[in-house]
Amino acid sequence: MTKDTHKSQRFGIIGAGALGLYYGACLQQAAFNVAYLMRRDYDVIKTQGLHVYSINGDFYLAKVAAYASPEAMPPLDVAIIGLKTTANHCLKSLVLPLLQQNPDLTVVTLQNGLGNEEQLAQIMAPEQVFGGVAYLCANRGEPGTVHHLGEGRIQLGALGPNAAKLAPLAAAFKQAGIPCTTTADLAAIRWQKLVWNIPFNGLCALLGCTTSDLLACQGLTADIRQIMHEVIRAANSQDLHEPISAPAYIEQMLTMTAAMDHYKPSMLVDRENGRPLELEAIYGEALRRAEQQGMAMPRTQFLYHLLQQQES
Amino acid sequence: MTKDTHKSQRFGIIGAGALGLYYGACLQQAAFNVAYLMRRDYDVIKTQGLHVYSINGDFYLAKVAAYASPEAMPPLDVAIIGLKTTANHCLKSLVLPLLQQNPDLTVVTLQNGLGNEEQLAQIMAPEQVFGGVAYLCANRGEPGTVHHLGEGRIQLGALGPNAAKLAPLAAAFKQAGIPCTTTADLAAIRWQKLVWNIPFNGLCALLGCTTSDLLACQGLTADIRQIMHEVIRAANSQDLHEPISAPAYIEQMLTMTAAMDHYKPSMLVDRENGRPLELEAIYGEALRRAEQQGMAMPRTQFLYHLLQQQES
Repeated sequence: MTKDTHKSQRFGIIGAGALGLYYGACLQQAAFNVAYLMRRDYDVIKTQGLHVYSINGDFYLAKVAAYASPEAMPPLDVAIIGLKTTANHCLKSLVLPLLQQNPDLTVVTLQNGLGNEEQLAQIMAPEQVFGGVAYLCANRGEPGTVHHLGEGRIQLGALGPNAAKLAPLAAAFKQAGIPCTTTADLAAIRWQKLVWNIPFNGLCALLGCTTSDLLACQGLTADIRQIMHEVIRAANSQDLHEPISAPAYIEQMLTMTAAMDHYKPSMLVDRENGRPLELEAIYGEALRRAEQQGMAMPRTQFLYHLLQQQES
Repeated sequence: MTKDTHKSQRFGIIGAGALGLYYGACLQQAAFNVAYLMRRDYDVIKTQGLHVYSINGDFYLAKVAAYASPEAMPPLDVAIIGLKTTANHCLKSLVLPLLQQNPDLTVVTLQNGLGNEEQLAQIMAPEQVFGGVAYLCANRGEPGTVHHLGEGRIQLGALGPNAAKLAPLAAAFKQAGIPCTTTADLAAIRWQKLVWNIPFNGLCALLGCTTSDLLACQGLTADIRQIMHEVIRAANSQDLHEPISAPAYIEQMLTMTAAMDHYKPSMLVDRENGRPLELEAIYGEALRRAEQQGMAMPRTQFLYHLLQQQES
């Protein structure tokens, strides 16, 4: 496949929050054809375009193909799902119209947590479903803007055994300046991210504090290590191609987090904005899969229940 | 000892919060001689007296012997400590002047948690130190009032092997209408109370909710059971005269709590009033004593750290 063939691929961003807007804008800036399904910023972006403020350099897209419903969107080759998982009950009604326009549609979910690919596979053929883990610090500011604050790399994997489609997908992201790798073990990259998300997202949301505030408390840092051990033991019971090496990976995660200055994980941002928390994708599904393998996650479970109570 | 000898006993209330004011007022109402060391309500109570609103009947004490410093207090036979344990660094400066006036002073701490009797025993002879567990729902309203909302019984024990002094103390409380029993095992009654305090005080303070809100969450109720198991295992490692029977005692505690309607434990009230939480007496000391016996309390420890972070 040549670069030109890539660029003829038509991308759709389904759920243009911070993640969707940022990756969509990068693809569009690299001359890919991108259509966006958006809600909050639809009017502003449609009429005034999108400002991207990025650590890699700011840019402005004057014309953005914004749509308010999937039925209105043009035919797509690749739909990137950026919805909050708390809106997954809408997946079917969002994806079916896209499939009607192009039955060969490839869907890539960059959502948090576990179970998203499986939910998509109930709507379409598993061979068309791909997942990715995005390590991205981004948020939306005033309408019509998105702020890229750090990182940005994506790891991609296939739900089914059709890894062949991964390479052109990764090539497109890379052409758009987004570091992207592929893996034969999608479950492994999902669980690896959870080793960080399960302690830090929930604790920051629960306590209304940043990652630095957690690490300033010696006792809690010890609990975070224990929670990471729980997640790794649960992950390693899931028949991954390669087990996660607990001590090394935990130290790597803590060192990385210590370098983040007062970072607010997405779940804290959701809490601060009065949005529902992604508890099922990040906690509920991990706990269910661990239990199926007979793995106890007592601290993770306790944290999940504390967050549930706060949401009630 | 006759009733008259009892009534000649001079009581002092050291730390006249809700608990101190209520028990002191009951003793005074029963014609015992009571002096109160108080801070917040000193001026109001000194000039306008104390109104007691109690489920057992309201009453009013027009003349209350209020003092603003221990040096100003008359000689006492029995000092009842009602201070928050977060003020225990003041114990020495409060009790020493009382001991100078009466070297045979008996001190009874009705404070929460573990370690209070031992701290008193560093100031005076252990034979003079007694402890009690108060099951009391009370709070202070506007200055000059105290509200007795439920329960009120006291269990008393001696720190040293001198149980002989317990009977007259208990007799005085009973004459004042306060249900009171004595035990030969002070540690047992302290730990029994912690089986309730450790889950409910901390969780209500952490989440800013009442006991009913916790029990409405099935997941958290399961965690509460687990925490109670941790406390009972730790208690039963402490060489108690009789072990606590886990399943029976846990069910009893949960049934009792379910009957409380949206109860706010003292630690939640402290949090709502911006007061420091009694973390060391209720959590820190229990965790240290459990650790000395090699008992792990993972959920208790996690809860302790969460509360510490909130306080930081």
